[in-house]
Amino acid sequence: MKLSKINKKKIWDTEKYSSRITEISKKTVGIYGLGAIGREVSKRLIGFNTKNYAIDPSPNFIPENIEECWGQEKLDYLCKISNFLIVCAPVTGETRNSLDRNRLSMMPKGSYVIIISRGEIVDEIALADLIKTSHIYGASIDATAVEPLPRKSPLWGLRNVIITPHSSALTPELYQMRRKIFASNLEKFLSNKSLEYVCDKITGM
Amino acid sequence: MKLSKINKKKIWDTEKYSSRITEISKKTVGIYGLGAIGREVSKRLIGFNTKNYAIDPSPNFIPENIEECWGQEKLDYLCKISNFLIVCAPVTGETRNSLDRNRLSMMPKGSYVIIISRGEIVDEIALADLIKTSHIYGASIDATAVEPLPRKSPLWGLRNVIITPHSSALTPELYQMRRKIFASNLEKFLSNKSLEYVCDKITGM
Repeated sequence: MKLSKINKKKIWDTEKYSSRITEISKKTVGIYGLGAIGREVSKRLIGFNTKNYAIDPSPNFIPENIEECWGQEKLDYLCKISNFLIVCAPVTGETRNSLDRNRLSMMPKGSYVIIISRGEIVDEIALADLIKTSHIYGASIDATAVEPLPRKSPLWGLRNVIITPHSSALTPELYQMRRKIFASNLEKFLSNKSLEYVCDKITGM
Repeated sequence: MKLSKINKKKIWDTEKYSSRITEISKKTVGIYGLGAIGREVSKRLIGFNTKNYAIDPSPNFIPENIEECWGQEKLDYLCKISNFLIVCAPVTGETRNSLDRNRLSMMPKGSYVIIISRGEIVDEIALADLIKTSHIYGASIDATAVEPLPRKSPLWGLRNVIITPHSSALTPELYQMRRKIFASNLEKFLSNKSLEYVCDKITGM
């Protein structure tokens, strides 16, 4: 039962959670994409005592708490070892639908998938199926292949799935930062200087 | 609306969250009690770029990311500066009901209270009132003064309050660790050696 319902129905059932909560410490976390988002994720992991591995074909830098960072060719292996798989990559020809049924099935039983960057990277039907059969225990999904997530998606209404509407970054501070970057880039543009934070949508960098 | 309801009703409302999500980075976290729990909490905070302060009259050691650790006499000040106040102290004569209405009211508008260790430390009626008036924006409560939390408690059913039944630690690994400690202490007891992890319930240490 979801926490909100428990709160409304005033249910205090300690026994239910006893020995059923997932320990994060000492688990393996796979970070798929070690760009700005992936590196922030790895920073958040510092205090959780996890073993972290990443996939990134050309990382800018590799944080200290990443044991190893591999190219795309080791994505099968990352899936096989990840108790938590965190999708932080851009959509490119290489990443699109790369977490397909085959690869998601390689994940250890009881693992979790977290989608932060782009939904098109994950086969959502396969993910829903694997959650239904309890091979994957849960998912937290902020980005979906089609947004808003279509009403017919099997992800809606699943237990142990948290769906947020591509909103995890939407703090007041984010907008303030964006306005600053826009103003600074406008100034650069008007004085013929090269712009900052330019993204190549083909390579995703 | 709670996430579970959103998931069931298939609601994708990005606009609703826009500029309303709380940024943790650069905020001030107060850790009340720097024992084993408080130190673990400070470890989890490493990756979140917060400024952390603590109260503990006799800390075993002070983690690097704690700016300052004070005695109980500075609890007023900790409340005044904490955007997130995390209760990790044992119940003692000094801490019982120390987060009373007066001190909770000193917290900055929009702050959050997290109760991990013991509910008797916090005036729950005052906490509920301050959440109702939106002075405190939310709370996450795993320990309450009376457990199970009585059905008449005003904390039940409040928005932005997560209540869990003193279960946040109940992983399989916890029980395994406890069994190990018990077995080891039994051995020590039988051979007249001094026991490990002995707690003085008066001083809370």
